[in-house]
Amino acid sequence: MTHSQRRDNLRARLQAAELDAMLVSDLTNVRYLSGFTGSNAALLVFADDRPPVLATDGRYRTQAAQQAPDLEVAIERACGRHLVARADAAGVGRLGFESHVLTVDGFEALTAEVDPATTELVRAAGTVEALREVKDAGELALLRLACEAADAALTDLLDRGGLRPGRTEREVGRELEALMLDHGADGASFETIVAAGANSAIPHHRPTDAVLAAGDFVKIDFGALVAGYHSDMTRTFILGPAADWQRDVYRLVATAQRAGRDALAAGADLAEVDGAARRVIADAGHGERFGHGLGHGGGVEIHEAPGINAKAAGTLLAGSVVTVEPGVYLPERGGVRIEDTLVVAPDTAGQDPELLTRFPKELTIL
Amino acid sequence: MTHSQRRDNLRARLQAAELDAMLVSDLTNVRYLSGFTGSNAALLVFADDRPPVLATDGRYRTQAAQQAPDLEVAIERACGRHLVARADAAGVGRLGFESHVLTVDGFEALTAEVDPATTELVRAAGTVEALREVKDAGELALLRLACEAADAALTDLLDRGGLRPGRTEREVGRELEALMLDHGADGASFETIVAAGANSAIPHHRPTDAVLAAGDFVKIDFGALVAGYHSDMTRTFILGPAADWQRDVYRLVATAQRAGRDALAAGADLAEVDGAARRVIADAGHGERFGHGLGHGGGVEIHEAPGINAKAAGTLLAGSVVTVEPGVYLPERGGVRIEDTLVVAPDTAGQDPELLTRFPKELTIL
Repeated sequence: MTHSQRRDNLRARLQAAELDAMLVSDLTNVRYLSGFTGSNAALLVFADDRPPVLATDGRYRTQAAQQAPDLEVAIERACGRHLVARADAAGVGRLGFESHVLTVDGFEALTAEVDPATTELVRAAGTVEALREVKDAGELALLRLACEAADAALTDLLDRGGLRPGRTEREVGRELEALMLDHGADGASFETIVAAGANSAIPHHRPTDAVLAAGDFVKIDFGALVAGYHSDMTRTFILGPAADWQRDVYRLVATAQRAGRDALAAGADLAEVDGAARRVIADAGHGERFGHGLGHGGGVEIHEAPGINAKAAGTLLAGSVVTVEPGVYLPERGGVRIEDTLVVAPDTAGQDPELLTRFPKELTIL
Repeated sequence: MTHSQRRDNLRARLQAAELDAMLVSDLTNVRYLSGFTGSNAALLVFADDRPPVLATDGRYRTQAAQQAPDLEVAIERACGRHLVARADAAGVGRLGFESHVLTVDGFEALTAEVDPATTELVRAAGTVEALREVKDAGELALLRLACEAADAALTDLLDRGGLRPGRTEREVGRELEALMLDHGADGASFETIVAAGANSAIPHHRPTDAVLAAGDFVKIDFGALVAGYHSDMTRTFILGPAADWQRDVYRLVATAQRAGRDALAAGADLAEVDGAARRVIADAGHGERFGHGLGHGGGVEIHEAPGINAKAAGTLLAGSVVTVEPGVYLPERGGVRIEDTLVVAPDTAGQDPELLTRFPKELTIL
């Protein structure tokens, strides 16, 4: 889908919300709708046929012309204020703005640019994020590449014997990140988590100089960034020998993860998807040891809509890309998380979701 | 300085501003004042002796207790709302909040937690950032380490012959980032800029597969992150042979940079510091080719107060850490930027600023 088609989709939403135009301030949303990647920008999109305007500052004049050749570019450091003034001058009555992004001070600066008698600033939080939830073919292609780069890097790491007693969490994380670059990633999606032994019981552990030891769980949560798209995968290994309690926890999490994946279907209630996996863990008496949501959307951000958790409202959409990542964490002992990224299939066919993170999930004792 | 002493300094500012307490929402500011590094947190600091409260969610219970052992920790997902309700219950009349950080929606959620008859939410943008501008001894020690790691990495890169025709910008950037890790950095301060040939004329160029060639300028802008502190340095080299115009541009920028450094003194007008370097470039007829500010503060963020540019208001403070980074960019041909990070000396002694980025700045033809 072209950026122009995405803006057409936004226009339809603006019309449905009876907005005459929308100011897009969030830089990720600006990029999604325009292709422009600069660090200071805003975009004005009208509900009718009037052409949109991209604003940025002088540093990005050339880059904006290259990345968004189909857009008028206004060079102005105070991007949002400039575009609001233009909307006001263009007779926009109801102007949507991103109230979940714009700061209190930023909003105050915008209000100075409009005549309140004619132009109303209307909260339109999450409008572009809702569009982003369903991925188009080009986005899916990039997410596949990102997940493949991560799969290949982890495969290489194991083939090289990179997970072995004596190495530190930090060394492992650094090698894995370098291998992702070798496989075409532009970088890591987020700070790689490598958590060994008791550290694996900390859901979001940052790699330290802790040394991997025989008998450890080693939990690795990482992703590759490709052309702005984020992959996300967790695998947990055992540096042998494996204790019975480790096998039990691993099997439990794997069963819960399977249940979560099986529940992924267009139209499924988000809280129900979470519940499908959570019940497996709760029934085994470990409900208290799974203290986070089951998953989240991913794309141009590592965490985006939808959230899949016990309190989530709404349903899964076909073509959304989500993680399924239950975990069980036993304090001071160790924890297991297994996470995949998948594409929710169309609701017509009863089709399985497409698995993007293909690295095996069988219990692996190294 | 301990986190507790920093909070004492904040208390003094709250009293001066006639605030009874302040809600700190910005995560960098929370970290600065508490030591806590989690991704969901807020801090309530009272102007009087009542103990501050740190709020975070259940994922961080253990980490918060470890990192902020001297603070009461409230476990609550909606951190800001919880603390505002506590402030309201504690009889806080004027409650400062970070209006430059809090979103319109976030602010709305907070207002629901207070009785407007008794508690007023008062804008207090930049209050903590102003404290952060002057670095304490511990911060300076970490900034020195960060700058040393970057110096050592660039030295290694050159010693290895890492800058040579045939390599790509991306390869050079990746090697430099790996070398920083070897020298103790936790990561890069920001995405390393390696810009060769005509790309060096783009002030903020992202490394590409462009190949370094004989006769190129190679501009490298990079930094090391050490314990949360960011170094920042730019050097520009020539892959020989050097043309006369290249030597001229280099000498001009080096002269301007010297003038900028010489102007760094406690109490100096910020716009005047910028002007000291800018005049050198303008007098040589290249004023239009230096399209950004002269420098910026650095510390727990890569860009922080003060900004040093033509429009800046205010003066330099002793103990602030700033960059001096003039550049001249000739479109389609090439550009030079030379950037150091320095500590502004106390105003008593007429002392020179301390140079943290010690890599040589002489014209280097490789």
